[in-house]
Amino acid sequence: MKFTAAQIAAVLKGKIEGDENAEVSNVSRIEGGAPGTISFLANPKYTQYIYTTDASIVIVNEDFEATAPIRATLIRVANAENAFAQLLEMYNEVKLAKSGISEQSYIAESATVGADAYVGEFAVIADNARIGKNVKIYPQVYVGENVTIGDNTVLFAGVKIYSDCVIGNDCILHSGTVVGSDGFRFALQDGGKKIPQIGNVVLGNNVELGSNCSIDRATLGSTILRDGVKLDNLVHIAHNVEIKENSYLAAHNVVAGSTVIGKNCMFSGQVGVIDHLVIADNTMLAAQSGVSKSIRKPGSVQMGSPSMDVMKYRKNYIHFRNLDSLVERVSELEKMLAEMDTQKSGS
Amino acid sequence: MKFTAAQIAAVLKGKIEGDENAEVSNVSRIEGGAPGTISFLANPKYTQYIYTTDASIVIVNEDFEATAPIRATLIRVANAENAFAQLLEMYNEVKLAKSGISEQSYIAESATVGADAYVGEFAVIADNARIGKNVKIYPQVYVGENVTIGDNTVLFAGVKIYSDCVIGNDCILHSGTVVGSDGFRFALQDGGKKIPQIGNVVLGNNVELGSNCSIDRATLGSTILRDGVKLDNLVHIAHNVEIKENSYLAAHNVVAGSTVIGKNCMFSGQVGVIDHLVIADNTMLAAQSGVSKSIRKPGSVQMGSPSMDVMKYRKNYIHFRNLDSLVERVSELEKMLAEMDTQKSGS
Amino acid sequence: MKFTAAQIAAVLKGKIEGDENAEVSNVSRIEGGAPGTISFLANPKYTQYIYTTDASIVIVNEDFEATAPIRATLIRVANAENAFAQLLEMYNEVKLAKSGISEQSYIAESATVGADAYVGEFAVIADNARIGKNVKIYPQVYVGENVTIGDNTVLFAGVKIYSDCVIGNDCILHSGTVVGSDGFRFALQDGGKKIPQIGNVVLGNNVELGSNCSIDRATLGSTILRDGVKLDNLVHIAHNVEIKENSYLAAHNVVAGSTVIGKNCMFSGQVGVIDHLVIADNTMLAAQSGVSKSIRKPGSVQMGSPSMDVMKYRKNYIHFRNLDSLVERVSELEKMLAEMDTQKSGS
Repeated sequence: MKFTAAQIAAVLKGKIEGDENAEVSNVSRIEGGAPGTISFLANPKYTQYIYTTDASIVIVNEDFEATAPIRATLIRVANAENAFAQLLEMYNEVKLAKSGISEQSYIAESATVGADAYVGEFAVIADNARIGKNVKIYPQVYVGENVTIGDNTVLFAGVKIYSDCVIGNDCILHSGTVVGSDGFRFALQDGGKKIPQIGNVVLGNNVELGSNCSIDRATLGSTILRDGVKLDNLVHIAHNVEIKENSYLAAHNVVAGSTVIGKNCMFSGQVGVIDHLVIADNTMLAAQSGVSKSIRKPGSVQMGSPSMDVMKYRKNYIHFRNLDSLVERVSELEKMLAEMDTQKSGS
Repeated sequence: MKFTAAQIAAVLKGKIEGDENAEVSNVSRIEGGAPGTISFLANPKYTQYIYTTDASIVIVNEDFEATAPIRATLIRVANAENAFAQLLEMYNEVKLAKSGISEQSYIAESATVGADAYVGEFAVIADNARIGKNVKIYPQVYVGENVTIGDNTVLFAGVKIYSDCVIGNDCILHSGTVVGSDGFRFALQDGGKKIPQIGNVVLGNNVELGSNCSIDRATLGSTILRDGVKLDNLVHIAHNVEIKENSYLAAHNVVAGSTVIGKNCMFSGQVGVIDHLVIADNTMLAAQSGVSKSIRKPGSVQMGSPSMDVMKYRKNYIHFRNLDSLVERVSELEKMLAEMDTQKSGS
Repeated sequence: MKFTAAQIAAVLKGKIEGDENAEVSNVSRIEGGAPGTISFLANPKYTQYIYTTDASIVIVNEDFEATAPIRATLIRVANAENAFAQLLEMYNEVKLAKSGISEQSYIAESATVGADAYVGEFAVIADNARIGKNVKIYPQVYVGENVTIGDNTVLFAGVKIYSDCVIGNDCILHSGTVVGSDGFRFALQDGGKKIPQIGNVVLGNNVELGSNCSIDRATLGSTILRDGVKLDNLVHIAHNVEIKENSYLAAHNVVAGSTVIGKNCMFSGQVGVIDHLVIADNTMLAAQSGVSKSIRKPGSVQMGSPSMDVMKYRKNYIHFRNLDSLVERVSELEKMLAEMDTQKSGS
């Protein structure tokens, strides 16, 4: 897709300075711009690059004052950064616009699919599934029996949703992600017999799951990710977990069974939280933290495995780095005392 | 699916107290029961809820004595907990009952599929694969050349089995799991040339693999998971690993090449075990443990990275939490000794 | 497939000693050889086994001198180990040879597919994708719009490539791996609004990705894995990361956004590297390391979380293992000093 400066300026309600027929088909950073791309200048630190960039169009703030000649066509707007973000969003929407139902998909007769939906090749929509309006179901997706998918949700290629799960509106699930697989529960006293996993998974609205995540169904009831929860890639959420609104879990997080995580939490990569804990709102966890006790105080910041207050961990870890010298200091003290003892008994 | 109290009582050989036409279509916990669900009461701690629950039917022990009016229909049985578990299992079996071979699947002419098998849409069964009786192959599963799948095994949507692998009877493999991908082996002295991975993966009977697991084939011979092994989600098992009977590995475990893990082991989440180790039977590993040496003593419990005896780790970790005060104590001792020295030389 | 000693000797330019009609259909280790298999002897430590092995054919070095009777047919070659490796490679090539385009695949009209390609059942090749020569696209693979795949590359069953990504020549991507999913970026000051991920992923030549990996596309520009990079299973590579030539990342590695990793690095399993770091060439990281600072010195070896020089970590970790006794030593010193103090004031 190609766009002219005139088309873009119209969308952004900006003023063109230069060639209104300049064409672009991609975006770039101003310091590395190439012909045929559009970039933007907002941070004064990057002003120098506007005089050398090869980008064909640059979006700038209204009040930008050039101090040397500029090759690129400029589009002046109230806020260059916001305008560029708006452009990216539109670009993405156009790029991801898809509709129509492939004849090579399988949709059960008892399933319903809302208006303007896209169902790609080799996707399966099983019995009694209900798909909302404007949903995008990419190729090779599996939507199990009785699943509900809300409006405007996107399931990228190969997502698998087990039966009875509920996905909200405006969600995005990336490829390889599995929703509703069985929880890891076996009756050990009974020879490891499988405990039936009868519950489901419920995702709120505006939830995004990265690629290759695994969200287990509840044993009874629901595993719940509330509105605005975001998971990065390869995250494991066990049976009966609840994650409250707008919490963010980075790649390779592991949350064990029945743990409840509060709102607005931020967990860095490779964090693990054991089962049956309660984590307060606004908790932050450093990368590779291992949480083995509930965190009751909202806004806690923890680190380490098992995790503790981040400042305490950092201080102790500095001592750990210097343990060798601490041991030497103790040895030195022992030697000194031994000498004093000798002197005393010798005196 | 709806069931009446009469139907359920017949199955459980129980006695109805209340409306034998009460209908349920789902299960619930007694403390959160909803109309149209069935629940149970076994633990006396929950007795209070039987008087307030909205569940339509509650299974109770024969000897339960009500002390106030109960709205729900009761079914009295010898052991309410076991009866409920039996019900869940039956429910699950009915729910997951599937059969028939989709016309939209691909089954190679040279492959054989046993009686009562289910093969879903867009599943592929490649040349010379042998599928047992009553096997369920969900949509979009891939079964490679010469693969053998035992009776009653379930492969959920999107499972991928590479050529020559062997899956036992009564196994369950969850969506996204890959069996038989190449081991991570390259000839570094030879510019990183790939070492051909000629072996396979062999799963015993009654093995369950969670979703998005990766089990690599052996370089030569077999990567083996013996009868009753259970893996949670996102577990990595490298080439030539052997895991013996009834061991359980929780989410995000990593077992490196050629390591042998004994029977009845229990590894918590995010555990890593390096290559070429031997881990004794009944070993337990705490979450995030990193095992870098063989564990020879059966029944060991370890923690930490590198891991050590759990009691030792816990004790040392408490000291780590207090390292700051230890350092202060040493500083204090140094000061005292310096003062004593000064006094002495001053005296 | 069966091969005779005569056929194999012809390929390896070796000399047969024994039955030239001996047939084999598989390979084995010499210490565990079975009839119908071929093995090799190179390491003198294993010489004893050649007299007892059940392998039908054994490849040996030209100068091997038997000191007892051998049942197996021998093939003498200049270098037995290399000859065996050559044989494995040929075997693998024959086994994985596939061609033809399944009628049950979907290839967009605007896509191009090079000569001798294999496209399996239910694979999707979307608009404007360009597939090189001799590429193998297994069943259920998804190749998005505008994707480029170089010559001789293999995408195993179920690989998913998002739009606009570029895959080089001679690459191997294992099942379940996702290339080009969105980076984990949200405007927190703006209610968690998604930041459009407009960039792509570029893989160089001779790159191998294990199963169930997730490689995120760049926000702008490209996430890049250069020639010869190898990833094990379940590895997460975030948006805008660059990994330079011939670096190896083992299973469950996590590399956060915009980090640059040098050439010839070797990271062991479960390593995490936070965002925006620079890691020098030839860096080695021990299992479960957590890197929180750039590593500027080429050839560094680090361990721990946060990571430090491996020798320093090991030394300090030994002290950690003995913290309990260190604390006792300090307590003992305190007691001695207190006694000395008492004596002094008592004196």
